[in-house]
This record gives sequence, C-alpha cells and structure tokens, in this order.
Amino acid sequence: MFAVNLLCFSCGETHPLEDSSIVCRKCKGVLNVKYDVNAIERHIDKAILKNRPRSLWRYREFLPIKNDSNVVTLGEGTTPLVQAPRYGAIVELRKLSLKLDYMNPTGAFKDRGSTVSVSKLKELGVKEVIEDSSGNAGASLAAYCAAAGIKCTLFVPEAAPSEKLLQAKLYGADIHAIAGSRTDVAKAAENAWRTTGVYYAPHNLNAFFLEGMKTFAYEIAEALDWDVPDHVVFPVGGGALFVGAWNGFRELLELGWINRIPRLHCIQSTACMPIVEAFVTNAMSVSPVEEAETIAGGIRITNPARGKQILQVLKQSKGAAVAVDDQAIMYHQKALARNEGIFAEPTSCAALAGLGELVDQRIIGLDESVVVALTGFGLKDTKNAEAAFDKVPLT
Amino acid sequence: MFAVNLLCFSCGETHPLEDSSIVCRKCKGVLNVKYDVNAIERHIDKAILKNRPRSLWRYREFLPIKNDSNVVTLGEGTTPLVQAPRYGAIVELRKLSLKLDYMNPTGAFKDRGSTVSVSKLKELGVKEVIEDSSGNAGASLAAYCAAAGIKCTLFVPEAAPSEKLLQAKLYGADIHAIAGSRTDVAKAAENAWRTTGVYYAPHNLNAFFLEGMKTFAYEIAEALDWDVPDHVVFPVGGGALFVGAWNGFRELLELGWINRIPRLHCIQSTACMPIVEAFVTNAMSVSPVEEAETIAGGIRITNPARGKQILQVLKQSKGAAVAVDDQAIMYHQKALARNEGIFAEPTSCAALAGLGELVDQRIIGLDESVVVALTGFGLKDTKNAEAAFDKVPLT
Repeated sequence: MFAVNLLCFSCGETHPLEDSSIVCRKCKGVLNVKYDVNAIERHIDKAILKNRPRSLWRYREFLPIKNDSNVVTLGEGTTPLVQAPRYGAIVELRKLSLKLDYMNPTGAFKDRGSTVSVSKLKELGVKEVIEDSSGNAGASLAAYCAAAGIKCTLFVPEAAPSEKLLQAKLYGADIHAIAGSRTDVAKAAENAWRTTGVYYAPHNLNAFFLEGMKTFAYEIAEALDWDVPDHVVFPVGGGALFVGAWNGFRELLELGWINRIPRLHCIQSTACMPIVEAFVTNAMSVSPVEEAETIAGGIRITNPARGKQILQVLKQSKGAAVAVDDQAIMYHQKALARNEGIFAEPTSCAALAGLGELVDQRIIGLDESVVVALTGFGLKDTKNAEAAFDKVPLT
Repeated sequence: MFAVNLLCFSCGETHPLEDSSIVCRKCKGVLNVKYDVNAIERHIDKAILKNRPRSLWRYREFLPIKNDSNVVTLGEGTTPLVQAPRYGAIVELRKLSLKLDYMNPTGAFKDRGSTVSVSKLKELGVKEVIEDSSGNAGASLAAYCAAAGIKCTLFVPEAAPSEKLLQAKLYGADIHAIAGSRTDVAKAAENAWRTTGVYYAPHNLNAFFLEGMKTFAYEIAEALDWDVPDHVVFPVGGGALFVGAWNGFRELLELGWINRIPRLHCIQSTACMPIVEAFVTNAMSVSPVEEAETIAGGIRITNPARGKQILQVLKQSKGAAVAVDDQAIMYHQKALARNEGIFAEPTSCAALAGLGELVDQRIIGLDESVVVALTGFGLKDTKNAEAAFDKVPLT
C-alpha cells in the first residue's frame, strides 16, 4: 500500500490511517489520505493499466487498502465516456462528452466512494455502521455493506425518493426516516453515533470515500489517452466527487502522466447554493444557507463539510460556480433523453443546465473540449421525471 | 466488415445483408448473420483486444456494420463479472459469478442488441421504425433511436412496468399501450407495419440485434482470460441472449480462442414455459402456450420466434431448461440484494431461482464454475420488488 497517513486539510496535522476519527483530532478539519507518490511512480507505469481488469481497482496503487482480500467490489467504475453531438448542438458545443457515471452497480457515482470506504471498514474489522444520506449515498453504502456482511443503519429524509429507499431496504439496511430538514437528518445520525458508539461513516467527510472518487479523474484521463479535456462540469452538493476528481488529476500531473489539469466547474441549485454564494463574493469559506425545495435533491446540501476545499479547487483549477433553477434542470433532462437516449436524474441534469450557463457566460468556449459528470440514473427518481415530461415543452 | 450474408436457420437460404425482410423470403425461417471466420482469424488476435476501448465495439470485427461512422453507441457492454460468495453459499456453490448485464446505458442487457440493430438501421438509411416490447427492449430501442435521430414507434402492453414506459417516453418514442395479451401487442405492431410500411424491427427476430448479444459470451471469455465457466444460466423469453451467447462461444471455439463451450441453461417462469415444455417432452419444436400472470414479465413470451434455435442450443451445449414460480423469484431477489448488495429485476432473479433448481437436480455440481446473467436493473420494476420485500421472509 502506498497510502501513508491521514492529513488534515486545515492544520496539516497527521493521523494514522487506522484512526477512527472522522475529522482532525486537533482542529476538527477534514482529512485527506496522503500517498508516497514517488513510490507509486517507481511501482507502476500507465502502460501497465492496459492489462488490468475493468474495475476502478485497476488503479489499485492509488487506493488506501492494505490487503486485496479486504476489497469489497461490485464491479464499480470504468463507466463510459460518450460523445454527445446532438445534445452538444443545443448548447453549441462541438466537443462535448458525457461521463455516464450512473452506470455503477447501484445506479449512482457514490459506488466509487463506497467500494473504498467499505473495504476500509472491513480492513478495520468494523461490524456495524451509521450513515445519513439524502438517498444515493445511503443506497450505495447499504449495498456494499450487504456484500461485506456489515450491518448498516441509515438516517434519511422522509421525502427521499422512494426508489432510493427501496434499494437501501432491499440491501438490508435498517432505515430511519426523519421528518424535518436535511440538517435534522444528519443530527439524528450523529446522536445515534454518540449514544451507541457504532462507527459513523458520513460519506462527505470520510477520507476513504473521497479516495474512491479520485478514480473518476483517472478514468477520464485514461479514456482520452492521457490528453485531458479543457473543462469538467460537476453537480456539487457535498463536493466529494468534485474534490476527489481534483485530487486525482493532481496526482496524475505529479506523476507526469498528464500535462495539465482541466478547469473544474461547480453547478448548484438556486434553491441551495452555498458554494456559488461564496464563489461570487470571493469568500474564503462557505457559509451555511437556508434549506429550500428543489428537484435536485442530491445537491441540496446547506453546509458542505468540504466547503473550503471546494473553494480551493475552484480557485486552483480556474473553475466557476453557477446555479440553475428547477425549470432549467427539467428542460435539460428532457432534452438529453430526447437527443442522446440518456436518462439521468435531476441532480445530474443540473450540471447540464449549468453547462449552458457557462457557455452563455463564455467561460467555456465553443471549440473547447468538455466532459459533464452524469452522476445518477434517471430511474432513481421517476416522479420528477414524469413531472418534467409533462411540464417542459422542448422547442 | 467480415459479415458475409444472412443465412436462414431453417432452410439455409442466403440473403444479402441489406435485405429488409425480417425472416427468410423462402420459408419464413429466422435469419442469422454469417461471417468469414477465416478472414477474422487473419485480421485479429485476442491479444489485440487489450488495446481496445471499454465498449462492446472492442469486438468490432465480429459485428456486421460496414462503416464506423454508422455506429450508434451509448457505452454499452463490458459489464462486470463479479464473484458472489455470500449468495453462492445459499445455493451451496463455491464458484459462482454474476454478470451484471443490467449495467448497460438503459439499465438492461437489450442495449447490446440495440446498439447493433440501430447502427444497421442508420447504415441502411432508415428514418423510422416500429417495434413491440414488454418494456426493456422498447426502452432500449427508443434510446438508441434518439441518439441516431430515428423516429421510434412502440407498441407495449398496458400493464408494462411504468418505469420502462417512462424511459421510452422520455427518449422520445411514440407509445401505443395495447390492452390484451402480449400476442395482441405484437399483432398491433405488425398491423401498423403492414398498413404504414414503416420498418418493423422486432428484436427477437432481428438478426442484427442477435449479433449484439454475442458479445455477452466474448466478455465472459475475455474476463476469465479465455478459460470459460462450466455453466452459464439465463432467463429465457424470446431467447436472443441465449442464442446470441451460444453463437458467440461457438465463434470463439472456431477461432481457437477457447477450447470448449459452457453448458447453457434456460430458466423460464412456470406461468409461461413453452421451452421447458418442449425440452422435457423432447419435442423438435416449441408449441405456443397460453398466457398467464408472472412478475417475470421480461420472459413472458408464449411463442418464442427462435424456439427451434433455443432447443438446438440446449441440445448442443448439453444445457437444461427448468421453470420457477413467482414465490421463488421473489425470494431470490431479496436474498441476492441482502447478501451481495445487488438489486436485479424479477426476470433476472428467475435465473437465480432456476440455478437453485439445477443444483438440486445435480445438473450443476457444487464444485463447478457458474455464471448467471442478471439482465435487468431492479429499479426497472419497483412495484414487484416492494411486494417481494413484504411478502417473502428470508430464513
């Protein structure tokens, strides 16, 4: 294993990889896994990857699990990167590709994180976990816990899409539906953790979950023969994919496998846009916002745990943050399905709506190459898709 | 292109690849694409595949499309083959793997067929198609037609799962919900074809759709480094995957890339088991059965178009055909989700229920290696999964 320790993003304090604390013991900052990149460089070359299996575990050296026997896998990762010429024409882009990251075992990108975080739980000998989630992360954790034989207790909002709750239930999770805001749900999970002592695995804070997300960047680079796109556009709630992808690109740059990092853009909902607010006001940190309704439930995070890190990535990658409303999300969901035969859930389609905004603002040039992350399958939330079909005429 | 012509399975008559007839013009037998295997052998070697992209089009030489520019792809194929030790223990198998073929762009294995059949439509300059489907095939065709800019009209049973209809609708298909039996739906599609002259693309008859299905076999062989399993178990309705997989394994054997063909087993529902009835009575052809209710809607085919071919594959591969009831299907759906974190739709879980039957009957030995095809994602049919959760206790 080439992972060395856990490094606090805020104060730089290091912790052993086996530390069960979710945040820095010194300053409560978020933790990141630190690697010995030189050792990785001596150990593998990108050409070796051609002989590796179709799984994100092909990037084994970049993942913080000691023993292969602890790897809990359901065949996640290596999702398709497809060209979208017909949808691209709508937003006037000639070089648009979509990363169909919903083509993961539970139908959402969260599986990238869960395969690593649950493998780590297995390695640590954990038998039982608690998590809070708006839906996709919970369903994903439940699936990997089922495969690992770990008991999983989930705290979810009462209003989470029934499909995601059904998944988690079938995977065997013990589910507590909480009335109130998303923050109330997180509080209920924290209370359960404090009173029971059961391992708490909140995915947006979990350093191992974040490591799985890096593979999103590796896959884009490898699929394009290490010639990365000019821009990558993400729907951002907790920011694990956004920050994870940055970490991935940065590692590849350090290794010399790529020669630049794409500009990474962050799309939020106008109903919940703490990062956009911090970005436009040039704030150094993200202030929590009030919770409001949006069909993009996956990015309705009022107080992102990795807020500072997200702002840093925006700055370092020269990315932008914009917000879009539900009407635009619904329009792009329908336009994508109609023109490309791709059905993504509303949260993913927020990224598409935001893409149009970035083109309009000339942040993305018409001849530049762009990848958009489609993070959740359309069947994860059929009610809003039905509504979109009826409400939004395509011109 | 190494495809030569269309060969009638019944009378051996050949037709040009461009022939728009769905069946043999001489005897109405089903058609198969014939290849120049020697030319393929001279052109590629299995080692070359390592440099090919993650898509079923990596097997380009085995697919009957002339020009790459006509390929309509959404990133289908190369689905995971995962080990299932915890679920395997329930059926007492030590070497059980699951091919998660629901991890295709529309959530079902049908995309393997649609990518090839719609590419062929594009190559032929077809602008509009008609199809009948119980759900998954229709949603898949609609998606690929959307990507190709081909108008798609679907005839579906009124009772098809709402999720599949929603997908097709969003992909822009024109949908006609037909009251009555599955056969009535097929008749309505045929009538529309006869009166309008619009290209009729029934997937179970379509020779190009069948070609896409072959890749299922190639992928299993390649993932296992060309050492194929002892058994492969399929849910069988129209039989396109079953027959397609056989054709794929047979071609690999001809090329010398594998040294044997697995035994291919066919699982049906007790509510609709024309193939099982023909198999147990040693009949030479399949007689239509009456339609009855089952939660395995994807295999409720009363009169499979490729019936004779299915029987031939059973015979040549030394496979067996067994039927399972809804109670068993629901039990195995829940047991799979609970033990492996995999959520498959009822039709796929019929194959698992049948696997248990084949083990009980000692057709599959406890030390033999087995792959089961999981063809549709659980979110394709949430109503039956909810019912299964409530009705079936796990012991």
